[in-house]
Amino acid sequence: MINIVVIHGPNLNLLGLREPEVYGALNLDQINERMQDLARKEGLQLRITQSNSEGAIIDAIHGALDWGDAILINPGAYTHTSVAIRDAISAVRLPAVEVHMSNVHRRESFRHHSYVSAVVVGQVVGFGVDSYLLGLLACKRTVEEMRR
Amino acid sequence: MINIVVIHGPNLNLLGLREPEVYGALNLDQINERMQDLARKEGLQLRITQSNSEGAIIDAIHGALDWGDAILINPGAYTHTSVAIRDAISAVRLPAVEVHMSNVHRRESFRHHSYVSAVVVGQVVGFGVDSYLLGLLACKRTVEEMRR
Amino acid sequence: MINIVVIHGPNLNLLGLREPEVYGALNLDQINERMQDLARKEGLQLRITQSNSEGAIIDAIHGALDWGDAILINPGAYTHTSVAIRDAISAVRLPAVEVHMSNVHRRESFRHHSYVSAVVVGQVVGFGVDSYLLGLLACKRTVEEMRR
Amino acid sequence: MINIVVIHGPNLNLLGLREPEVYGALNLDQINERMQDLARKEGLQLRITQSNSEGAIIDAIHGALDWGDAILINPGAYTHTSVAIRDAISAVRLPAVEVHMSNVHRRESFRHHSYVSAVVVGQVVGFGVDSYLLGLLACKRTVEEMRR
Amino acid sequence: MINIVVIHGPNLNLLGLREPEVYGALNLDQINERMQDLARKEGLQLRITQSNSEGAIIDAIHGALDWGDAILINPGAYTHTSVAIRDAISAVRLPAVEVHMSNVHRRESFRHHSYVSAVVVGQVVGFGVDSYLLGLLACKRTVEEMRR
Amino acid sequence: MINIVVIHGPNLNLLGLREPEVYGALNLDQINERMQDLARKEGLQLRITQSNSEGAIIDAIHGALDWGDAILINPGAYTHTSVAIRDAISAVRLPAVEVHMSNVHRRESFRHHSYVSAVVVGQVVGFGVDSYLLGLLACKRTVEEMRR
Amino acid sequence: MINIVVIHGPNLNLLGLREPEVYGALNLDQINERMQDLARKEGLQLRITQSNSEGAIIDAIHGALDWGDAILINPGAYTHTSVAIRDAISAVRLPAVEVHMSNVHRRESFRHHSYVSAVVVGQVVGFGVDSYLLGLLACKRTVEEMRR
Amino acid sequence: MINIVVIHGPNLNLLGLREPEVYGALNLDQINERMQDLARKEGLQLRITQSNSEGAIIDAIHGALDWGDAILINPGAYTHTSVAIRDAISAVRLPAVEVHMSNVHRRESFRHHSYVSAVVVGQVVGFGVDSYLLGLLACKRTVEEMRR
Amino acid sequence: MINIVVIHGPNLNLLGLREPEVYGALNLDQINERMQDLARKEGLQLRITQSNSEGAIIDAIHGALDWGDAILINPGAYTHTSVAIRDAISAVRLPAVEVHMSNVHRRESFRHHSYVSAVVVGQVVGFGVDSYLLGLLACKRTVEEMRR
Amino acid sequence: MINIVVIHGPNLNLLGLREPEVYGALNLDQINERMQDLARKEGLQLRITQSNSEGAIIDAIHGALDWGDAILINPGAYTHTSVAIRDAISAVRLPAVEVHMSNVHRRESFRHHSYVSAVVVGQVVGFGVDSYLLGLLACKRTVEEMRR
Amino acid sequence: MINIVVIHGPNLNLLGLREPEVYGALNLDQINERMQDLARKEGLQLRITQSNSEGAIIDAIHGALDWGDAILINPGAYTHTSVAIRDAISAVRLPAVEVHMSNVHRRESFRHHSYVSAVVVGQVVGFGVDSYLLGLLACKRTVEEMRR
Amino acid sequence: MINIVVIHGPNLNLLGLREPEVYGALNLDQINERMQDLARKEGLQLRITQSNSEGAIIDAIHGALDWGDAILINPGAYTHTSVAIRDAISAVRLPAVEVHMSNVHRRESFRHHSYVSAVVVGQVVGFGVDSYLLGLLACKRTVEEMRR
Repeated sequence: MINIVVIHGPNLNLLGLREPEVYGALNLDQINERMQDLARKEGLQLRITQSNSEGAIIDAIHGALDWGDAILINPGAYTHTSVAIRDAISAVRLPAVEVHMSNVHRRESFRHHSYVSAVVVGQVVGFGVDSYLLGLLACKRTVEEMRR
Repeated sequence: MINIVVIHGPNLNLLGLREPEVYGALNLDQINERMQDLARKEGLQLRITQSNSEGAIIDAIHGALDWGDAILINPGAYTHTSVAIRDAISAVRLPAVEVHMSNVHRRESFRHHSYVSAVVVGQVVGFGVDSYLLGLLACKRTVEEMRR
Repeated sequence: MINIVVIHGPNLNLLGLREPEVYGALNLDQINERMQDLARKEGLQLRITQSNSEGAIIDAIHGALDWGDAILINPGAYTHTSVAIRDAISAVRLPAVEVHMSNVHRRESFRHHSYVSAVVVGQVVGFGVDSYLLGLLACKRTVEEMRR
Repeated sequence: MINIVVIHGPNLNLLGLREPEVYGALNLDQINERMQDLARKEGLQLRITQSNSEGAIIDAIHGALDWGDAILINPGAYTHTSVAIRDAISAVRLPAVEVHMSNVHRRESFRHHSYVSAVVVGQVVGFGVDSYLLGLLACKRTVEEMRR
Repeated sequence: MINIVVIHGPNLNLLGLREPEVYGALNLDQINERMQDLARKEGLQLRITQSNSEGAIIDAIHGALDWGDAILINPGAYTHTSVAIRDAISAVRLPAVEVHMSNVHRRESFRHHSYVSAVVVGQVVGFGVDSYLLGLLACKRTVEEMRR
Repeated sequence: MINIVVIHGPNLNLLGLREPEVYGALNLDQINERMQDLARKEGLQLRITQSNSEGAIIDAIHGALDWGDAILINPGAYTHTSVAIRDAISAVRLPAVEVHMSNVHRRESFRHHSYVSAVVVGQVVGFGVDSYLLGLLACKRTVEEMRR
Repeated sequence: MINIVVIHGPNLNLLGLREPEVYGALNLDQINERMQDLARKEGLQLRITQSNSEGAIIDAIHGALDWGDAILINPGAYTHTSVAIRDAISAVRLPAVEVHMSNVHRRESFRHHSYVSAVVVGQVVGFGVDSYLLGLLACKRTVEEMRR
Repeated sequence: MINIVVIHGPNLNLLGLREPEVYGALNLDQINERMQDLARKEGLQLRITQSNSEGAIIDAIHGALDWGDAILINPGAYTHTSVAIRDAISAVRLPAVEVHMSNVHRRESFRHHSYVSAVVVGQVVGFGVDSYLLGLLACKRTVEEMRR
Repeated sequence: MINIVVIHGPNLNLLGLREPEVYGALNLDQINERMQDLARKEGLQLRITQSNSEGAIIDAIHGALDWGDAILINPGAYTHTSVAIRDAISAVRLPAVEVHMSNVHRRESFRHHSYVSAVVVGQVVGFGVDSYLLGLLACKRTVEEMRR
Repeated sequence: MINIVVIHGPNLNLLGLREPEVYGALNLDQINERMQDLARKEGLQLRITQSNSEGAIIDAIHGALDWGDAILINPGAYTHTSVAIRDAISAVRLPAVEVHMSNVHRRESFRHHSYVSAVVVGQVVGFGVDSYLLGLLACKRTVEEMRR
Repeated sequence: MINIVVIHGPNLNLLGLREPEVYGALNLDQINERMQDLARKEGLQLRITQSNSEGAIIDAIHGALDWGDAILINPGAYTHTSVAIRDAISAVRLPAVEVHMSNVHRRESFRHHSYVSAVVVGQVVGFGVDSYLLGLLACKRTVEEMRR
Repeated sequence: MINIVVIHGPNLNLLGLREPEVYGALNLDQINERMQDLARKEGLQLRITQSNSEGAIIDAIHGALDWGDAILINPGAYTHTSVAIRDAISAVRLPAVEVHMSNVHRRESFRHHSYVSAVVVGQVVGFGVDSYLLGLLACKRTVEEMRR
């Protein structure tokens, strides 16, 4: 069994309610269900949290230390501004995967830089809800690779 | 009746107690009273919050979704560093007005850039407590314009 | 009685005739009437000029020395390129308020910098004709504050 | 018949008198004659002005509104510094063609940027007097294309 | 059936022979086999090419026009320097997915910028051979989404 | 008789087939016919090539040495990235004219810089197929000027 | 007696548990004990807090107003991104000393800039736990100096 | 006899009336008298003009062609923004000397760059009215040197 | 016994004589006495030199090779400009501590960068003469740590 | 015996035919003969290729894997733009020496940066044909050093 | 009597021997004689030194403390690189005048910035030996002004 | 006979004693012997100096005027910071060759820029002691070329 801590960053609690033309019609609960479905099929166990607070996200990353084999994180807007989240990921030394639903490289230039990218295993960017699902698969394979 | 959510950013709870030569002698309660006075005269209803936490400010912006017709926000220091607050304003799709008591363009160069400015209707900057009062009027006229 | 010199910068003479979807349907004369209406109500006396010439705008600022208590200026495109207008405002030592009808922070990046901002009391930006009206109120309160 | 307003920017009144090795031996009158010759052949009517003043150039662009089908402009040094001329071209919404006699890209780096280029149809640069003549042809074809 | 054109960029022909500690022990043929295995399972048909030449890669992208439903591309070093490959992807108007085996954000800063990212659907970065496999899944889901 | 080598850069082989709203409905063959028509009228002889490969374009420039009096080049995306094409033009010491169909100054900022501009006689930019035709006239006049 | 508010920033709660080769084998409790030992010897009284939340750190700084004579702060990753913490230190007008356990100038370039440095008395950087101890001594001497 | 055209740039007409602590108590007429006194002693003939308009300053520079042996210019704020004045000085090919009353290098960083400096013989900066007087001597010696 | 080479950089010989409001009233001899007092108490032996010459400072650093256990250096203005001093510290491979009396981060931006910081153990900045005394303690603890 | 692959980059095939005042009067064949003469004297075996194509140069670098002990490369204009050539040199893990005939540091600023320099052993720059000859000696000594 | 310390920076000892077309035919002794001649006429006493060493120039500036009323300095190449000389001038608090024989603004861009300019009274630049003579007059008037 | 002045810059006196893994096991005397051996074989006469002082290095360059035919210089850390050494080389107008033992382009980015490179004939970089030996050969051939 592989345990994955899934962390949704700021404003993602509004998914589905708002701007469906950008982020799709699914709300966060529905996205989480999709992840749980895939998790069951792939033998993964998920703990999912969302927060708008940088500090709470850091706490969640620290919280992964005791239970998680990997972290799946969509840091939202903190991607571009938070050295503290980067340091948290770095400090817990768990493999992490960064995902974004929209293609950040098509948006404002300040969204092209990620403080997080250099401390995670990799990124999945631009595929809507599929970014999460592919990201879970990436987590799984990374943990399997490490266990070998 | 027009409902306006008023949000004071970090360190503004210290107003009046400290640096009266810069920010005037009024404390935050007195400023809020001034706003309530004007609101009564102009037919506005206000909900006012202050927080030092970026996450709590995002929560307050989200909270405007159910009740507010417009947002009046002084993001304080988060003006210059918070993409997450920008995204929150963008996501709720309510008209917002950005205010600053001091003229930020007279201060350090890192205060000349605002992540928030591009997603609000406009800014009122540099007039002390009057920035808030003029900002309320701007909110009112923007909502009236939209209702027409 | 408070005397305010109102200065419209380059291309503002075309207002209303062109691009009503951006700047509203009012032409410059109608905007000036609106200001005169408010002025009468608030006990302000206005002298209004428009010019496409940087030099003529500087002359108008100098001209405020003998009569004006404050300056309300929309420097238009010169906002971003004119050190000379900045120096003129600085030299006459009258309180000045900078206004823009459109939200310059939503437009090209070269419009995000204002040479004028650091020498005025404050800015009102993004509210169409209301930028002028709120700007007049800001002038009034600034002069009243100084007279106290 | 196609009406074209031709605008020569600052210092171009000195053409031919000075620096013939750079700008050729023709003076501005001779260049204007060459344009008139071509205009007659191509069924164009020209109104030609020159000014050293940014404000007067803006006035000339505004003046094209009532008569002109297109603008041919060599903004000279204002190419690199004038947002106000850019805005004037943008505001009158006539097709405009930007020309330069010398190849500005071979000169100082501050001449490589043009505020005007993004609001005109296109540029003809580096061919001496022929820049004007080719520019007239470009104006003609652009207007013909629009009339189709 | 979904047809996917897979394009390997420069130096990827050396995979497996060299630097196994960085890129894994698989050579390009073995990676291609892995992709073919997955393709069979997922109902995809693949045409795979590798080239060290920017021009040949552009030709391969153009070649996708007649047959492909999507493009999977690892542009290698051209990621960071080729506007022409970006334009080719843009011109053929097929959905494309960008993959990288290594996490480019952990490497030299000139590898942090991708000319390609803004014209593809999304990116999968940092998972070794799994970047290709996840990329194929992303292609599949994107095409399915478009067909709906 | 004046011999002109015409070189079309990368992705221009797709003209007319794709994005007619941007580049017009003519395909490359039709554009070439238009050039041949003009050439016959103006006493020019043309050799026209297109390539997606930077190296092949350099070879074509070198090839102009034995036959050409001038070069007409639309370097496409290589305009912004190729020092080698710049050096080739510089090395053959033939007069060259740079053309672009679209107005590159209205597009992404990385398209505002041209490595080629400093080594050609001049540029014609933004007039669709007319950029080529005006460019041919510019070549002709430049060669005539040099022969005088 | 001198009262010092000691504030540990984000991720410092993980000290000693993780990366002992970088930060030493002491955990945060042991570091705090060392500080208490020194405090007793030097006649200092300490109130120590740690938080991963920017807002909570600002609250802690404000909290120093009623009790503290000085602030000793290791802002961790917020050093490089928080204007709000800078403003909090500035607003309470207590002498503050900034400390870092690692030598930030040997690390990534984004760690070389501190928003906090310009509003504190000074910095002690790079000496592991001794940074805290030397920082306490610096606080003590600064307060003594001010009382003189 | 040496003829020198003296040109005062924008806002210098306010000298002496305003900010005497910065620019000294002399007004522009008194400064001009001082220059005339020195001119008589040194055998110089002066024509002195002041304008707030960039275009008028260019006209004044052109006007020096028929009469002047040298130009003494204080371009004021246009120093930092006017390519057109630079080109005018360049075009008339008369020796020019640039003067500033205040030490521009002690002021805002945008005042550290001068478009004019590269086309004049030299600069005299920072000595109040003496900048003009030393500048006249520099003009004189430059002309004498050229006549030798 | 621990031997420490103390090096004062340029202009520090003027301490106490000049600008006492910035650097305190102590002259360099008095500062050195304070250090000797502390050294005696802490079991340190000091060799102290001052020089205005970059070369002489490098010689002094080299000279530490035979006798010193650590280096305490205030590189003064050379902090910001001397790669050679950085290389000297790096070459002798002795632990070094960098001190500054004033808080360099409150001063001109060119003083915010130190070439030396990346090759020393750490910095003590902003505490006047106490910077030296705390720096000596830091040296002592570093050497003790290394001997363990 | 030491085997060296010599690679000439773009436009070097024109050497001697053009710009003899810059690159000397020798053509590429004559330079190659000079290298062969030296090779015979020094016990080196050379395989020499030239190409204008980035891809072909990468192929040539890969081709060195089976036969070469070292690579001597003059990447010409690709020096400044090709990450792909850099990666090719890096991937084959043979010692490489970069040479340039002209002193690139005297030319345009975009020629001052080399993508290749960081992955070769060293550079020989500015000595015309002697750059190649000294480069061969450097290759030889590097290989001898490695064999020891 | 006014005492002026004159300091010539690096390489100025070669004046007259070398590059007379740039710096004039006078050698340093002849320039010094010219200054002595003027000094006698103006009632100035000069102490003149030249050094190629940054440290020795700092010593010379310090040496002015006991005797000089002002400093005339041509810092040569140290103008652009020496913070230490800037600090020395600042520390001695004597009025200083910066001179350059050539017009540094016509030369390489790294010569456009002067560390010294912000701490001197003013600059005289570009007039050959006359820069020194005008600089002496500027020193004289500055001291006279201060004595008033 | 050819006379070459060899100048070793700062910290090179420590060669061989320190960091043999970087700079090789040879000390400066042994490197000098190697150069003398080569010099005898090639008919060169050498005068070798080393200094840690920028001023002394300038003096040494000046000293080459009377005796030297060429200069071989390893400016060490002054490569990156000394305009004065650049000017000295420029002023003496002797051919100079710049050498570095390590490949500076693999090190910190501030080592990638050389003030000296633009005024020397060429560079030999990265070959340890062989950089000096190849540099001597480059000097020899340069002088021979000039004598022809």
